[in-house]
Amino acid sequence: MNLATTDETRSSLTDLPVPAVDADPHEQDVPWRHRHVLDVDVLSAADLELVMRTADAMREVLGRPIAKVPALRGSNVTILFYEASTRTRVSFEVAAKNLSADVVNIAAATSSVAKGESLVDTIRTVEALGARMLVMRHSVSGAPYLAAEVFGGSVLNGGDGWHAHPTQALLDLYTMRQRLPGGSVEGRKVVILGDVLHSRVARSNIWSLTASGADLWLCGPSTLLRGFEAWAARGAAAGRRFHVTSSVDDALRDADVVMALRIQKERMASGLLPSLREYAARFGLTRERLALARPDALVMHPGPMNEGVEIAPDVAVSAQSVITDQVTNGVAIRMALLYLLAGVRDGG
Amino acid sequence: MNLATTDETRSSLTDLPVPAVDADPHEQDVPWRHRHVLDVDVLSAADLELVMRTADAMREVLGRPIAKVPALRGSNVTILFYEASTRTRVSFEVAAKNLSADVVNIAAATSSVAKGESLVDTIRTVEALGARMLVMRHSVSGAPYLAAEVFGGSVLNGGDGWHAHPTQALLDLYTMRQRLPGGSVEGRKVVILGDVLHSRVARSNIWSLTASGADLWLCGPSTLLRGFEAWAARGAAAGRRFHVTSSVDDALRDADVVMALRIQKERMASGLLPSLREYAARFGLTRERLALARPDALVMHPGPMNEGVEIAPDVAVSAQSVITDQVTNGVAIRMALLYLLAGVRDGG
Amino acid sequence: MNLATTDETRSSLTDLPVPAVDADPHEQDVPWRHRHVLDVDVLSAADLELVMRTADAMREVLGRPIAKVPALRGSNVTILFYEASTRTRVSFEVAAKNLSADVVNIAAATSSVAKGESLVDTIRTVEALGARMLVMRHSVSGAPYLAAEVFGGSVLNGGDGWHAHPTQALLDLYTMRQRLPGGSVEGRKVVILGDVLHSRVARSNIWSLTASGADLWLCGPSTLLRGFEAWAARGAAAGRRFHVTSSVDDALRDADVVMALRIQKERMASGLLPSLREYAARFGLTRERLALARPDALVMHPGPMNEGVEIAPDVAVSAQSVITDQVTNGVAIRMALLYLLAGVRDGG
Repeated sequence: MNLATTDETRSSLTDLPVPAVDADPHEQDVPWRHRHVLDVDVLSAADLELVMRTADAMREVLGRPIAKVPALRGSNVTILFYEASTRTRVSFEVAAKNLSADVVNIAAATSSVAKGESLVDTIRTVEALGARMLVMRHSVSGAPYLAAEVFGGSVLNGGDGWHAHPTQALLDLYTMRQRLPGGSVEGRKVVILGDVLHSRVARSNIWSLTASGADLWLCGPSTLLRGFEAWAARGAAAGRRFHVTSSVDDALRDADVVMALRIQKERMASGLLPSLREYAARFGLTRERLALARPDALVMHPGPMNEGVEIAPDVAVSAQSVITDQVTNGVAIRMALLYLLAGVRDGG
Repeated sequence: MNLATTDETRSSLTDLPVPAVDADPHEQDVPWRHRHVLDVDVLSAADLELVMRTADAMREVLGRPIAKVPALRGSNVTILFYEASTRTRVSFEVAAKNLSADVVNIAAATSSVAKGESLVDTIRTVEALGARMLVMRHSVSGAPYLAAEVFGGSVLNGGDGWHAHPTQALLDLYTMRQRLPGGSVEGRKVVILGDVLHSRVARSNIWSLTASGADLWLCGPSTLLRGFEAWAARGAAAGRRFHVTSSVDDALRDADVVMALRIQKERMASGLLPSLREYAARFGLTRERLALARPDALVMHPGPMNEGVEIAPDVAVSAQSVITDQVTNGVAIRMALLYLLAGVRDGG
Repeated sequence: MNLATTDETRSSLTDLPVPAVDADPHEQDVPWRHRHVLDVDVLSAADLELVMRTADAMREVLGRPIAKVPALRGSNVTILFYEASTRTRVSFEVAAKNLSADVVNIAAATSSVAKGESLVDTIRTVEALGARMLVMRHSVSGAPYLAAEVFGGSVLNGGDGWHAHPTQALLDLYTMRQRLPGGSVEGRKVVILGDVLHSRVARSNIWSLTASGADLWLCGPSTLLRGFEAWAARGAAAGRRFHVTSSVDDALRDADVVMALRIQKERMASGLLPSLREYAARFGLTRERLALARPDALVMHPGPMNEGVEIAPDVAVSAQSVITDQVTNGVAIRMALLYLLAGVRDGG
């Protein structure tokens, strides 16, 4: 069932109470019941709607001369990243500081976590040091789920292996709703273009975009789409439809949104990817290719960009590009999630 | 003389004024006269008692919804670590932020400090940049003493070479007092098990535990106990008694506390340590070995653990384990020390 | 024209309004019109005077028990350093925190910025993440100018290649004015001694010191002065006079200020520099050489020092040394600049 299409759902979404984000999250009566944010697959249409509306309130905060609310004052948010990152790490840090939290950064090397036990020990230690919220990035898919089993507070997944990047998918959804006419992705043709196989961004977007009723297309070299045909077939049976194609023309034609994915240069060694030049020639998002889409189609990218490879520089900075909006919306989304998690009383 | 045993001492300890930690440390009349915390050897029984009681007050703060007091507001605490560390560095950072200090982290590479003059220059610079408290870890024993000679504020030793790790010893003492029946280590059999030779944790614990009247036993391979027999002999003459043995059975029998030390894998190259497998077989703290101790004996470890080597995973998470308590108490102890140092007026 | 010498200029400088730094910078009516601080070459004598007086006010703040003002509360200052640094990075961090800003540190590796586009993308991202002030250090000369073209807030250059280090030049000027009799560098003989060729510190000091009327001398091995003779000739034509010599005796004789520059050991491979021992013997600032200068000549160094190479240890800590004053004044200067930039309304 596509959760966003029934009238009953619509009606309940309209009535959704939105938190007053200047106030204490513990004193809000908001229907949010998740203790962790590990992926978007468990979020209902109502959950997504609540995140979007709370993010709206946070965007308003970001526009103030002093872009801060006291929601998490005295609360310890620990950012534990086992992979290098600038934008996601800083986005969480800024989000937490805007909520007046105390932020602790830990840049862990994957090499020091040879065994699962040690990860568990690290999580227990971080909690004993005072962390109430744990933002975690790890190269191993599923690592944040293990963390959530032992951590007494809330875990936010900042990206795990190829598996999931839920805050990216939520900021992408928010950006589309913000910029698409009508404020909804329902029925809109959204294309994710590039190395889908290795992309946690793509995987999380599949969940949130199909749950929101988008007409989703995945496009890239066939070697980088392996397994997604089968997923699409299973998904269709469960009401989560999406298309998989290696034809850029088919994908881009009349698209409302085109999201180019970062090409990881190290993938070429695996033989899955042609040369960067060949990739750019066949799949790069150029002005010519973009002309196949609707005239006002949105151009998105999770960053950091390899300009001239998966996206042409002029496309990246064109009037259709909402790439920097994505970044700012990422701060608002993360503020919204930290706020909602802070208000959870009885876990879940 | 064992400082903790005379009646006069007891009486004076009972009367000890404890700071009201919500108030300004400068306005407290607390009998603390040390400007630095370089090791525990210079702390009297009254000093230890004051640290423990102040840490009690800080534990209470840690239990509040907003775990902060304004004691060090506007004060600069600089954490200068020449060795990699996560738990000790974060513990000091959280402690300082809980006291509302501004924290500056500097991760220095030992390689850039080739000469003593450069260390002195770094310390002078850090002070000129505004540091009022300097938390320092260095691979060279004694480096914090050199720093204390030139630094105008307070130096806290976060671990120097094999020499000392005073805040670890204090949090260990605090954890034992908190969890042992009667709230005292006096007369209790405490075992430190493992690579005593290379352990600053062991060295600092020897001072604080003998000063507190514990029945202290050091146990490990004889190659890793070198020199401690001689120290024990000298210590006994000065009223600081402890036992040294390579017999795990003798050490653990009827023990009240068993503290396993981390095995540094790089020690094996030196020939001082057998293989990790052999070490685990002969000295690892297993459930079977722990059965020799009292049924409610406390299990401790300074972390990070090599589970399966110096401590078995089931022992580490058993009901007897107070390892995560140690971590949280570490924050309270460091808050207590920062608070007491902030109140010192005329150096010492 | 030497801007500091006319009577009209003097009169206008005396009337300069100085900000009340405890108040909101946006409510101050201060004649500061620069949106960025990229180098000192565009600063007029009145600009320099305003920075100096604002720094005076910040020195007063630094002397308070709580060395903080609320000027930048809720404002995001991002420190983006593409080169390793301790003192400049920490100095900006402390300055920003003393103004109650939220500070985000990003240690970027130059290797990840292979193309100019990527730097632009990083700057856009940092802005979208919320940065209002961007402090930047980069190994490529001119990089902060590129950043300023795309960044919507204010860029402060924390050092770019061999080109400029404006905050260092300003703190140097401030330190000289603070410590020289009469409070002015006008007509004072100031010597910059060492590897001038590779020094952004020297280049920025040339601008600010000649604009302030100092009698400036550059001294070092002739291989490390290349091109400066020609600059001196052009500068003289424009009223910015300075001398270039390889004679240490000529340079130091009757000097009022001697600033030794750090010798980068990696320069020796280029063949431009003799051995460190030979450099120290011929150009090192020893007590004997310093005796050629005035008896109360100031000794300066931008740090970190190679003691025993470009400066003798006893000279570095002598009563004439103002090296640690430079460090503290650096915090005051950076507070002053952040404050002045925060008050700019209409860019420029």
